Amino acid sequence: MTSVTLGSRVWINGALLDASSAVIPITDRGFTLGDGLFETMLWTGTKIRFFADHLTRLANSGDELGFALPMPIEDIERALIALAADAQGTLAALRVTLTRGGAPRGLAIPVPASPLLMATIAPFVKPVHPVSLKTVVTTRHAGAPSARFKTLSYIDNIVALDQARKGGAHDAIMLSTTGHVACASSANLVIRLKGRILTPAVEDGALPGIVRGRLLKAGLVGESHITPAQLALCDGAVLTNALIGVRPVGIIDGRSIMTENVWVEAMIDALK
Amino acid sequence: MTSVTLGSRVWINGALLDASSAVIPITDRGFTLGDGLFETMLWTGTKIRFFADHLTRLANSGDELGFALPMPIEDIERALIALAADAQGTLAALRVTLTRGGAPRGLAIPVPASPLLMATIAPFVKPVHPVSLKTVVTTRHAGAPSARFKTLSYIDNIVALDQARKGGAHDAIMLSTTGHVACASSANLVIRLKGRILTPAVEDGALPGIVRGRLLKAGLVGESHITPAQLALCDGAVLTNALIGVRPVGIIDGRSIMTENVWVEAMIDALK
Repeated sequence: MTSVTLGSRVWINGALLDASSAVIPITDRGFTLGDGLFETMLWTGTKIRFFADHLTRLANSGDELGFALPMPIEDIERALIALAADAQGTLAALRVTLTRGGAPRGLAIPVPASPLLMATIAPFVKPVHPVSLKTVVTTRHAGAPSARFKTLSYIDNIVALDQARKGGAHDAIMLSTTGHVACASSANLVIRLKGRILTPAVEDGALPGIVRGRLLKAGLVGESHITPAQLALCDGAVLTNALIGVRPVGIIDGRSIMTENVWVEAMIDALK
Repeated sequence: MTSVTLGSRVWINGALLDASSAVIPITDRGFTLGDGLFETMLWTGTKIRFFADHLTRLANSGDELGFALPMPIEDIERALIALAADAQGTLAALRVTLTRGGAPRGLAIPVPASPLLMATIAPFVKPVHPVSLKTVVTTRHAGAPSARFKTLSYIDNIVALDQARKGGAHDAIMLSTTGHVACASSANLVIRLKGRILTPAVEDGALPGIVRGRLLKAGLVGESHITPAQLALCDGAVLTNALIGVRPVGIIDGRSIMTENVWVEAMIDALK
């Protein structure tokens, strides 16, 4: 059965290994300093969705932060497809993690680095119900590397999600240090406001997401500053990320949102 | 010789292990999400400096973020002293890392967690020359968990240090999202300004540092907002952290600072 074997193997720097015994050195900077990047991709059952978009983002982020991919993108794709062999016909989450590898203590970037590239796979079940969101205290650091890139330094988002859960919601709405609406803890936000379809700007702390980017490119969504007051007036909202795709929002800060199916489906169609 | 064996062993969840083969599971949240805390302490050659201060901060940070220490503080102290047996008579950096351990994918905090507690030791040489600092673009996220606690999510500080190094300085001065001066990449800053001795406020992104706390308590330093314009007028400055203690600053943003020895030594004396 697929459910037994899915996730039983991982791929680390070119080798397929047994997941239960897979380890990394304690000196890896991903572990010691959150100094790494990752991508989480959807395995549809037959292919990796938006693979090129993900690897382009990973490579570009790496260029900006001084991380090099240790092998050609084609080899990474082959590795992911080999991992996904256990998940034929079922959804799965494929994660690629890239770090600068092991290094002595201290923040200074090791030169040369010995990068670690790891791929894992996990079962994924698409959520069916609309999501409830709650604006939390912890903010998003607009303009910082931790917000502009998908790095391993996730503590603020972990705390934000926890604050939302303790407040009875499924996920957080994080404002940014600019005072505008930024995103959820691991998804972007799109709202409908007086007929306009808007998503927070990258300069307000939104991660340049894959699905978000596709919707912007398709012209279905526009980038904008969104104030908390505007959020309180929206009459439709969805979360987007590579795993969930487009997920309707049912509640924001205790207020029911009547997100229209036809609007959600137009976005889902645009991603096909 | 001490230099051969120092750092050859690590301590993980109660076991002393060979460092060269020490590993952690790939599912550890410290690695996957920067979801952990750490302390770096000075081994003086005979004892751990400020041990109680460090462990109090670690335990208090854990309480606020929902991390539990998996064993009594006395056991941790014994482990660190056992590690330091290789460093009798020499300085060393002792690091304790605490994570929530392994967990399935996603940001949600695992309940119950299986915490990972690790201690490592590395040679440390006290720097002798005054440090040069440069104000960098990357800011500190004032008020966020990533700034208030010493977490593994360090990417912004890594980038800040790299920006300073590329600008020809030893270390960065990070401003905070409040626009005030916050700290260096892994040290706090104390300045002398028109006869007043000031250090940035925690609400401006300063980490509640151990040495910083001791100097505040001794009444030698006062907490204050510090603007970049005030920084440009200071006539003395030091960096502080648990490893370096108090280190004179020689240059800020290209301007030579004549930090007086008598002032630096008064702070060093207060720490004794």
